[in-house]
Amino acid sequence: MGAVKTKRMPRAVREQQMLDAAVRIFGQRGYMAASMDEIAELAGVSKPLVYLYLNSKEDLFTACIRREAGALVEAVRAGVRRDLPADRQLWEGLGAFFAHTGENPDAWSVLHLQARTHGEPFAAEVTAMREEIVAFVTQLILAGAREAHRDPDLPEREVAGLAEALVGAAESLAAWANATPGVTARQAAATLMNFAWAGLGDLMAGRPWAPREEPPGPHVG
Amino acid sequence: MGAVKTKRMPRAVREQQMLDAAVRIFGQRGYMAASMDEIAELAGVSKPLVYLYLNSKEDLFTACIRREAGALVEAVRAGVRRDLPADRQLWEGLGAFFAHTGENPDAWSVLHLQARTHGEPFAAEVTAMREEIVAFVTQLILAGAREAHRDPDLPEREVAGLAEALVGAAESLAAWANATPGVTARQAAATLMNFAWAGLGDLMAGRPWAPREEPPGPHVG
Repeated sequence: MGAVKTKRMPRAVREQQMLDAAVRIFGQRGYMAASMDEIAELAGVSKPLVYLYLNSKEDLFTACIRREAGALVEAVRAGVRRDLPADRQLWEGLGAFFAHTGENPDAWSVLHLQARTHGEPFAAEVTAMREEIVAFVTQLILAGAREAHRDPDLPEREVAGLAEALVGAAESLAAWANATPGVTARQAAATLMNFAWAGLGDLMAGRPWAPREEPPGPHVG
Repeated sequence: MGAVKTKRMPRAVREQQMLDAAVRIFGQRGYMAASMDEIAELAGVSKPLVYLYLNSKEDLFTACIRREAGALVEAVRAGVRRDLPADRQLWEGLGAFFAHTGENPDAWSVLHLQARTHGEPFAAEVTAMREEIVAFVTQLILAGAREAHRDPDLPEREVAGLAEALVGAAESLAAWANATPGVTARQAAATLMNFAWAGLGDLMAGRPWAPREEPPGPHVG
């Protein structure tokens, strides 16, 4: 690559540029295939400067995960008004989530795919973020149950499972929305509310799904 | 490791033993960290024999993905009676899915985590399997909508999004169930039916979730 001319610039600004470039390359190429040469070139700096600032490919990747996990959690948090009913909070949180993952598809790829499969230190960073989001969703489900006047008689494990299901559905929809032209954050959020909340709503109101008995004769509508 | 004594055994049987060992090591260590030495040792064969039969670590991993994807789809298919109402089919399909992923946690780790992040040939194998499952769920949602007498006036894109959400929820719950002692396949399936079907049921019956207006004064119960 040779030396790249670098203007004088505060270290913090340079570092953010390196992270911007790294998130893009890690997200698009994957962690293993990403090259430090390409990251340095995209950031407009020399490779030794990347190593000087971020130390190693591992540390650079960790810094990317940490920054993007923080940004995603912050975006969701900022999107939610805590004084609204639980379903409205979820609606706003999902809207913020899909807006952020849609605007930052490479960051989402780093968090959702890359960070989870290249060993413990990386996976642990994402696990911490995911647990924070699951805890937020768990609180919303409990608040929703209280609003529906069924004061927590949903077993704790059932609530934990529901929160996992909701977060998994959101993760899957984010990947799908990013891969499907024309799907907006609002549509993705509406689809998930339709899918999840109406169902959670029934559950909280004491109407769980139960298998019907097989009809004895022709299906009665 | 040195030569390992190997009894005479048909090649097909030996290959399955190698794949059994490889799934376990790939699932527990991850693709990158997995060593061919360890796989050969666990399979009770020499490393050259693994290379002779499966050619390379890449090909061995591909063979694992292909076998386990096929087994999972087959387990779900075998668990479903197609003459039942759509919700019962989903209930049985989910039961079979969680039973299979619970009995084969290493295979699930290979499919859900490892296979998706180590480049295109591997990811494509899993994508094909996932598309088959999404298509199955899509058909169930359409069938459910017909049973609810709302002949497909759910837009195609909405149904596609719902199917993605349901599959993502199931993936997330499978990982959670495998990591949480004491969660049975039946409980995971029941949680997801509670979460998903009651909600889909409302949607199919023409009762989508809609944000309530913010209450003008104190919350009215």
